[in-house]
Amino acid sequence: MQSDHCVHMALLYKSLSRKVLLTSAAMKRRITTDACQILMSPSLTSIDFPDIWTSSSCSDYSSITKSYDDQQTATVIDGRVIAEEITSGITSEVRRMKNATGNIPGLAVIMVGQRRDSQTYVRNKIAACEEAGIKSEISNLPEDCTEDQVLNALSRFHEDPSIHGILVQLPLPQHLDESKILNSVHLEKDVDGFHPLNMGNLAMRGREPLFLPCTPKGCIELLIRSGVEITGKRAVVIGRSNIVGLPTSLLLQRHHATVSIVHAFTRNPEQIAREADIVVAAAGVPNLVRGSWLKPGAIVIDVGTNPVEDPSCEFGYRLIGDVCYEEASRVASAITPVPGGVGPVTVAMLLLNTLESAKRAHNFA
Amino acid sequence: MQSDHCVHMALLYKSLSRKVLLTSAAMKRRITTDACQILMSPSLTSIDFPDIWTSSSCSDYSSITKSYDDQQTATVIDGRVIAEEITSGITSEVRRMKNATGNIPGLAVIMVGQRRDSQTYVRNKIAACEEAGIKSEISNLPEDCTEDQVLNALSRFHEDPSIHGILVQLPLPQHLDESKILNSVHLEKDVDGFHPLNMGNLAMRGREPLFLPCTPKGCIELLIRSGVEITGKRAVVIGRSNIVGLPTSLLLQRHHATVSIVHAFTRNPEQIAREADIVVAAAGVPNLVRGSWLKPGAIVIDVGTNPVEDPSCEFGYRLIGDVCYEEASRVASAITPVPGGVGPVTVAMLLLNTLESAKRAHNFA
Repeated sequence: MQSDHCVHMALLYKSLSRKVLLTSAAMKRRITTDACQILMSPSLTSIDFPDIWTSSSCSDYSSITKSYDDQQTATVIDGRVIAEEITSGITSEVRRMKNATGNIPGLAVIMVGQRRDSQTYVRNKIAACEEAGIKSEISNLPEDCTEDQVLNALSRFHEDPSIHGILVQLPLPQHLDESKILNSVHLEKDVDGFHPLNMGNLAMRGREPLFLPCTPKGCIELLIRSGVEITGKRAVVIGRSNIVGLPTSLLLQRHHATVSIVHAFTRNPEQIAREADIVVAAAGVPNLVRGSWLKPGAIVIDVGTNPVEDPSCEFGYRLIGDVCYEEASRVASAITPVPGGVGPVTVAMLLLNTLESAKRAHNFA
Repeated sequence: MQSDHCVHMALLYKSLSRKVLLTSAAMKRRITTDACQILMSPSLTSIDFPDIWTSSSCSDYSSITKSYDDQQTATVIDGRVIAEEITSGITSEVRRMKNATGNIPGLAVIMVGQRRDSQTYVRNKIAACEEAGIKSEISNLPEDCTEDQVLNALSRFHEDPSIHGILVQLPLPQHLDESKILNSVHLEKDVDGFHPLNMGNLAMRGREPLFLPCTPKGCIELLIRSGVEITGKRAVVIGRSNIVGLPTSLLLQRHHATVSIVHAFTRNPEQIAREADIVVAAAGVPNLVRGSWLKPGAIVIDVGTNPVEDPSCEFGYRLIGDVCYEEASRVASAITPVPGGVGPVTVAMLLLNTLESAKRAHNFA
């Protein structure tokens, strides 16, 4: 009976094996271990197959865009301008807090390794802190550091009363246990909002997490400031990462959108995306979302920041989005550019979460 | 500037006011309080408007069902049979544990007030415990009890080593703070899986909650045992309650379905539901889902258990589902009945969670 279950489970999940490049034997073994008990349902982590997207890059736009009306051009949602407005408000608040209490907010960043995209992000965050009058500290750890070294850096920042927010720059090297490390960030300093308790409180109606994850919070702010009413709209989130896709879908739902989540196992992503009034692209796949994926007039928020080699750029690469911008801007009614869209607003949200944390710590309203 | 924001927020959310029966002044006041800071985004709890569905009851089937082919009849997914199979496995495991360790699993139920539907559920749970050899205890508190009384009952069960699972029967009377009470259930005895940390771990890939909420876990088990492959399927969850709709949508996504969540603010629920291969109805609205909401061949899981007066029944009422069964069974390929579908399997999952908790507590594999 039990082995029947195992075979059944293996059959049920056989279609995955091609996509995830596990042999069916390995797949069967993984599922067998967890599932062949009383239930036929497997354990969740045993079915956490990676999302591997096949992208039809639109590097040759010329032939494709012909069918679109060249006159129709989406409004560009300028993330830099919006981020500046927000940061200006934060700067005033930091000054007011300093005058009233003598304290300023402090942000600590733990950075492991030398990923150049991560370095860029961290550099931007630190620069933004300086601009807003927020103290910042970085702990740079080597690529091959131990988990204990990361946890020790965390502890030091936990104990430091001048630090109100701690972020661990992701992704971490493979040998480190990301879940364990994120679980160790104290809730009241978890300005990235990645702790599962914050995530649960984001998901559940009637609750409010201590911190909203920065990118989802930024997406909502971009929509609201662009005059987009979210309630009742169909929103499609492309990608389901723990740090962007998942929390963005949950937050859009809290704002009463009707949300669908598209991922690498979705059979007809293009068709589903085309139903959406609001498309949030967060798959991490350059140019995944083509013009044909969009309903005319849709609002497009492009979270993708994919580095592509470009020797002509300062750091040897440039960032492009998940959305084929040239095509999409002819179909959408509004779109965020990459760079200059979600990125700057995400950084502003990090500053804001740090400010809110400091206000909470110093009981300053 | 700030008052501009307030007006803007009020305008953005004005369309809600009709549905949620708040005056626009009250609405503006609620949103104003939380939102007119640096951001234009409101706080989440300030926009937790209730889901008020308008149901087109199908009490007069006769005229409607004529257009369906009378020959086409969905397979009935027999929740009672599946629950018996699972419970039989649990019973064996309880016996094995008792023989090996001398301990049996114990479940405690905290029941506030005298809601007759809640009484029925609790009765069923206790009876199921007895059948499986699981110890059960009930703490019956009066409708007007204080929060402290509930928390005291919780504490007693937390300290009792013979209790491995505690559930607070919902809904609680309005005067009690449900979030606070559910937060107080110790994680390792939270067999309902309603603690936000368990919910966060359910939502996030790479993580596994200590307990999956019973109804969502039961829905997945019903699908798997009915031979339904979930991966890649379009699933529509109707309703987004913290205890059913939300966790079911998260769990279906962990199983790689492409999930859309329909709620009372969804503009075209019928059209969206009709795209689904798997429909989970959990709105708590009798007969909300008509035959016309279903794609031919869809799988329908009806979580609704709506009591309707019926003097001919033992307790003066009977339960009907969220799905108009007579219509749906002519369109769907498989459907769960109410009663006898999700209900018994939910109870079996509660027993299983309690068993797993006891095994964990006594380090018994």
